[in-house]
Amino acid sequence: MGKARLEAFSDGVFAIAITLLVLTIPTPDDFHRLGHALVQQWPAYAAYLVSFTVIGIMWVNHHTVLGHFARVDRNLVYLNLVLLATIVFVPYPTGIFGEALQRGEGERVAAVFYSLVMTVNALAWAALWLYGSTRRRLLNPAFPEDQRRTATVLFTMGTLIYAGTIVVGLVNAYACLAVHGALAVYYALDPLSRWVSRFTV
Amino acid sequence: MGKARLEAFSDGVFAIAITLLVLTIPTPDDFHRLGHALVQQWPAYAAYLVSFTVIGIMWVNHHTVLGHFARVDRNLVYLNLVLLATIVFVPYPTGIFGEALQRGEGERVAAVFYSLVMTVNALAWAALWLYGSTRRRLLNPAFPEDQRRTATVLFTMGTLIYAGTIVVGLVNAYACLAVHGALAVYYALDPLSRWVSRFTV
Amino acid sequence: MGKARLEAFSDGVFAIAITLLVLTIPTPDDFHRLGHALVQQWPAYAAYLVSFTVIGIMWVNHHTVLGHFARVDRNLVYLNLVLLATIVFVPYPTGIFGEALQRGEGERVAAVFYSLVMTVNALAWAALWLYGSTRRRLLNPAFPEDQRRTATVLFTMGTLIYAGTIVVGLVNAYACLAVHGALAVYYALDPLSRWVSRFTV
Amino acid sequence: MGKARLEAFSDGVFAIAITLLVLTIPTPDDFHRLGHALVQQWPAYAAYLVSFTVIGIMWVNHHTVLGHFARVDRNLVYLNLVLLATIVFVPYPTGIFGEALQRGEGERVAAVFYSLVMTVNALAWAALWLYGSTRRRLLNPAFPEDQRRTATVLFTMGTLIYAGTIVVGLVNAYACLAVHGALAVYYALDPLSRWVSRFTV
Repeated sequence: MGKARLEAFSDGVFAIAITLLVLTIPTPDDFHRLGHALVQQWPAYAAYLVSFTVIGIMWVNHHTVLGHFARVDRNLVYLNLVLLATIVFVPYPTGIFGEALQRGEGERVAAVFYSLVMTVNALAWAALWLYGSTRRRLLNPAFPEDQRRTATVLFTMGTLIYAGTIVVGLVNAYACLAVHGALAVYYALDPLSRWVSRFTV
Repeated sequence: MGKARLEAFSDGVFAIAITLLVLTIPTPDDFHRLGHALVQQWPAYAAYLVSFTVIGIMWVNHHTVLGHFARVDRNLVYLNLVLLATIVFVPYPTGIFGEALQRGEGERVAAVFYSLVMTVNALAWAALWLYGSTRRRLLNPAFPEDQRRTATVLFTMGTLIYAGTIVVGLVNAYACLAVHGALAVYYALDPLSRWVSRFTV
Repeated sequence: MGKARLEAFSDGVFAIAITLLVLTIPTPDDFHRLGHALVQQWPAYAAYLVSFTVIGIMWVNHHTVLGHFARVDRNLVYLNLVLLATIVFVPYPTGIFGEALQRGEGERVAAVFYSLVMTVNALAWAALWLYGSTRRRLLNPAFPEDQRRTATVLFTMGTLIYAGTIVVGLVNAYACLAVHGALAVYYALDPLSRWVSRFTV
Repeated sequence: MGKARLEAFSDGVFAIAITLLVLTIPTPDDFHRLGHALVQQWPAYAAYLVSFTVIGIMWVNHHTVLGHFARVDRNLVYLNLVLLATIVFVPYPTGIFGEALQRGEGERVAAVFYSLVMTVNALAWAALWLYGSTRRRLLNPAFPEDQRRTATVLFTMGTLIYAGTIVVGLVNAYACLAVHGALAVYYALDPLSRWVSRFTV
């Protein structure tokens, strides 16, 4: 399978996962006081927004990372499937997170669950990168060696940071959701992303 | 990321959002008097049709707008994600609008909510255009300067017009749904759209 | 917008609509006698199969028809959106048809509703063909004139045949479902489809 | 229809089917003891993972098989639609399997149902291969004759092996789910898949 095909399939999965997020927002029951009911649902909107941002920026970074690989092999195809499995799963903890915050029940469990899924996702990203970059296995020859080391450090740290969000979730669910939003924005701006403009585009 | 990729991903998201709209129509409960139940559901069909038209024509106009950009940059990719987030969200207020009209409860709240989402969407369109066209940042060199000014006026007015639909919703929900349908048709025929034939095709 | 783009977007919508059909099959409630419950659901499987066949073969014929057009224009893009709106809608009457047959309530109403949707769909196909082929507006120059007339007759007859399924639905719902399945298979084998091998491939 | 188009449409269907799997995991009812409720749901996660692996690896193998065909014809397009119908259906038995295991009711019926669907799927794969490869109808001229015979034996055996999982399901539902996971992994590693690296890439 060529790289273009792998990217097209991944794009499709990203596009569908990001669109299914809207199904996580429950229709209100109380149409008599609909305005009130819609306002009460703000945690579901917040969870939708955070997960949309997370998946959207992961989609951008997926291009960045694959853009640094000169080719793909069978193992990378499978590692990519593992990564997609964690992304496709995101609507599920998102819905639970939104509903728990709205009900005021099980918020911290929901926050920990969401953070666990994100940690597994970070591990899948790190595995993808480490497999493709170790001994420059699939790396573009033009990709600078010092950048490779920096990226490896960043991906490894990423898994630790996401593991840290589990601890935040144990303490406060709202803070945990905010941290996930902030982390997504960070990944939109961080050095890893800035490589795009320097090397791929 | 190249422009072709951004458009392909956006196309995918448009295609999925437009298809998910059908899930907003609830299955009737009363199969004993199914004909009656299906006729009663006409507001859900009407909301489906209006939102399908809205998203379908936005998809066409998305091509028009991106067709006038010579290239995309990272900020535009993120502004495009913001725009997609407002489009992917559309099935949610659509379902609520249809159900409120059908129940005869909370109609005006649902109309205002729908109009609010459309206003945020209009703001995202304006932001995309203003970012790409200001000082001709990403604009195609062949794109005429006077057309740029006209487009900027139209996009700015668009946000005001959609803000106006909020007021319509406060008065009458059915009129509000009709106005949204009419606005979609207008955007299918307006000068902005006619640029396509003149400049891109 | 180029023809390739229109086809890619349409392909996406076909692919999603055909996949959403699976959501029309309800999960059984009675897990104690699950085997019995699953067998009882056979009308939902039958409706799924018929609609899958209908949409799948429409997807093939969409390529056939567009393959005979040398180019697309703005009106055709909108007529194509109308066609897609009727296809995206199919999972809704499919779910109602399957459930009505399973409950043994409202079967003929569901059959008439399904047939009505298919008739509107046939009208959308005829409109697409008539717009593109009248005075050979968008037709490929190599497309033979006598074939054009035959196709116009077939598309016009198609709408009448589908209108006829409404009458079948008034009489017997099971016969109506079978007729829709048979019509889909007919469209897979009919002269219209055979053009593909002669002119496009 | 060209091969590229058939593959793009199939890719879309695979991507959507794999993403819809997440909708098979039910949201817990008990938010008071959410942690407990989420742990109780492990069979739904297990069924999700097995089906994700199954569809993901089928997607890879779909490329392998089509990569060995020099061209496609109309019959292959229809056989491919039959195959897609069995894949699109997978979320349904997956949801039932997960729920039956979780409830501790109807597990073996659910396992048999899941295995039946997979057997029909294996038959569709065998039909696709046999149609394309018999008398080398659509086969790439470079594809070795002895490999063709091996593949035919493997596809035929595949249907028998999947028929065997029905028997496993009659005995033990958990073992049956594990066997399906193991079979998917086997198909990721088996000789059929290894052809990719030798002939297509």
